[in-house]
Amino acid sequence: MRIAYSTMIQTYTDILTRRGANPDVAVLTAKIMADNSLDGVYTHGANRFPRLIQYIDEGYIDVNAKPECLLSAGAFERWDGHLGMGVLNARAAMDRAVELASEHSVGIVALGNTNHWMRGGAYGWQAADAGCVGICWTNTRPNMPAWGGMDKKIGNNPFVLAVPRSDGRHVVVDMAMSQFSYGKIEEARLQGKKLPVAGGYDTNGNMTDDPVEIEKTMRVLPTGFWKGSSMSVALDLIAALLSAGLTTSEVGRRYTEEYGLSQVFVAIGQNQFNSAEFSDGLIESVIQDLKGSEPVAADTILRYPGERDYKVRLEQLENGIEVVPEVWEKILGL
Amino acid sequence: MRIAYSTMIQTYTDILTRRGANPDVAVLTAKIMADNSLDGVYTHGANRFPRLIQYIDEGYIDVNAKPECLLSAGAFERWDGHLGMGVLNARAAMDRAVELASEHSVGIVALGNTNHWMRGGAYGWQAADAGCVGICWTNTRPNMPAWGGMDKKIGNNPFVLAVPRSDGRHVVVDMAMSQFSYGKIEEARLQGKKLPVAGGYDTNGNMTDDPVEIEKTMRVLPTGFWKGSSMSVALDLIAALLSAGLTTSEVGRRYTEEYGLSQVFVAIGQNQFNSAEFSDGLIESVIQDLKGSEPVAADTILRYPGERDYKVRLEQLENGIEVVPEVWEKILGL
Repeated sequence: MRIAYSTMIQTYTDILTRRGANPDVAVLTAKIMADNSLDGVYTHGANRFPRLIQYIDEGYIDVNAKPECLLSAGAFERWDGHLGMGVLNARAAMDRAVELASEHSVGIVALGNTNHWMRGGAYGWQAADAGCVGICWTNTRPNMPAWGGMDKKIGNNPFVLAVPRSDGRHVVVDMAMSQFSYGKIEEARLQGKKLPVAGGYDTNGNMTDDPVEIEKTMRVLPTGFWKGSSMSVALDLIAALLSAGLTTSEVGRRYTEEYGLSQVFVAIGQNQFNSAEFSDGLIESVIQDLKGSEPVAADTILRYPGERDYKVRLEQLENGIEVVPEVWEKILGL
Repeated sequence: MRIAYSTMIQTYTDILTRRGANPDVAVLTAKIMADNSLDGVYTHGANRFPRLIQYIDEGYIDVNAKPECLLSAGAFERWDGHLGMGVLNARAAMDRAVELASEHSVGIVALGNTNHWMRGGAYGWQAADAGCVGICWTNTRPNMPAWGGMDKKIGNNPFVLAVPRSDGRHVVVDMAMSQFSYGKIEEARLQGKKLPVAGGYDTNGNMTDDPVEIEKTMRVLPTGFWKGSSMSVALDLIAALLSAGLTTSEVGRRYTEEYGLSQVFVAIGQNQFNSAEFSDGLIESVIQDLKGSEPVAADTILRYPGERDYKVRLEQLENGIEVVPEVWEKILGL
């Protein structure tokens, strides 16, 4: 079914308001969660909204808490998220990184003690909307074995790179350090499909593309095998060091749920150094070259990162946002 | 065979001096190239040295050219490498990023019009030696098909993340956006081995771990399939935009060899915000947790990124640097 963007925002706002969220908190959280679905990232939009409310109800999220700057040093700030709303903390941190970039050309905000930011790409789009190159990442609970290990020791630590274009069709990479999310593996299982490439291990310790087998072990593969595993460790260390927050391993030891996370937000004011004509031209030439690839199959379409999000956004703004009926019904009951 | 570190530096210095390199250029280039072998990264140390000299002889590298700052704005600078020695340009750029970080907490230098930096990890170790978190990357010639494409359109664009420890045992990730380098694929073929995971495509368009088949198509796989492909595109765009340098696609159109590259160097002065006790403790706790993984096999050793480099460095400082005899003979003849 399709739900109008404005209806979705209003519905979320009402539910959050009933949970005691102040008007500014309710409206902006509602907008960010609706935007995630609007761009087609349903797993961190409507599908996740009930769990967000559950976390508020269980006290994991302090709904009206505001992040606080603990340390300010030139182009860098360290913030404490006070376990407030993850999406608002992340948004405020990237806003501040953009502000710092307008003063210093570069801004970095490290945010500790925060909650799940839902869709990392949102903060990449945000930086790019402000004309900045955006780079950000978060750590997570231990949810993946390190390369060479059996048990979950590292996080899938989503990592975002965003490159602005003046017309808003930004190039945005939003990638977790696992090859597939648990949601994707479940989706494949429900559809009776194999994954397109190996996504984890079976009970015999062999790599497999069969979601049923992977769900038996829950041993998912890091993206790029040892590479994603290494990158996950480094991203976790940098986020925890800069924010003086918790590492993935500490989050796992301390909490049973995923909260108390560490994140980094980088904004680089590239619009201060380049004309829109130069940067748009450069980006367009790379995209055209990419799309000029000889495709592996006649019906293969080569897309640049972020292309689908933008296309889906325009389509759903016009025709309403795709929602699984059971999910929407559940949301209406919150 | 083993060559003493000091002998290797002296040998390289003499060869570079005969090519007209000024003393400072010859000595520092020699040291960086020797350090790469010292840390066990032979592909970008001794094995690559003859090609470095060939590039000087053919005029691709302007051996005494100095990089120039084109634009300075707060924590950001844009540099022109004037097609000078790639390793020196990169080293100077990271040095300057570290200096900027000492003033602004963060420093970014974007370097265009430069040459191959050899081992990217070198500049991560450099930042970490200065107490900084280091992040850097380079673009390359088109050397890999994008995901969904047959022909080489994107670069393998190595990406580096470095986290400092006060005793020098830094955590350093140095990863290309291809799953395997051409060097690794060749090495497996020469040893008659399969790759540990799929590394490219055979002539029927199927993924394969057979290096012989991959060398027939030269269609190597991006790390993480679509993920490495997307990340490669974004890294290329950011490097070219910030440096106002060439994109991977432009390098391919303009030059037959790999030069005229664009790079980004980020230093974050984490030692200004954290005591060594705090940061060393945090890093050690993550490493110990990682090493506490249940191993997939009894003889599996879980390593943190950079662990091997440091260990090999100490061993080879003592016992001399491992060199293939034919390579060393070739170097002595330069």
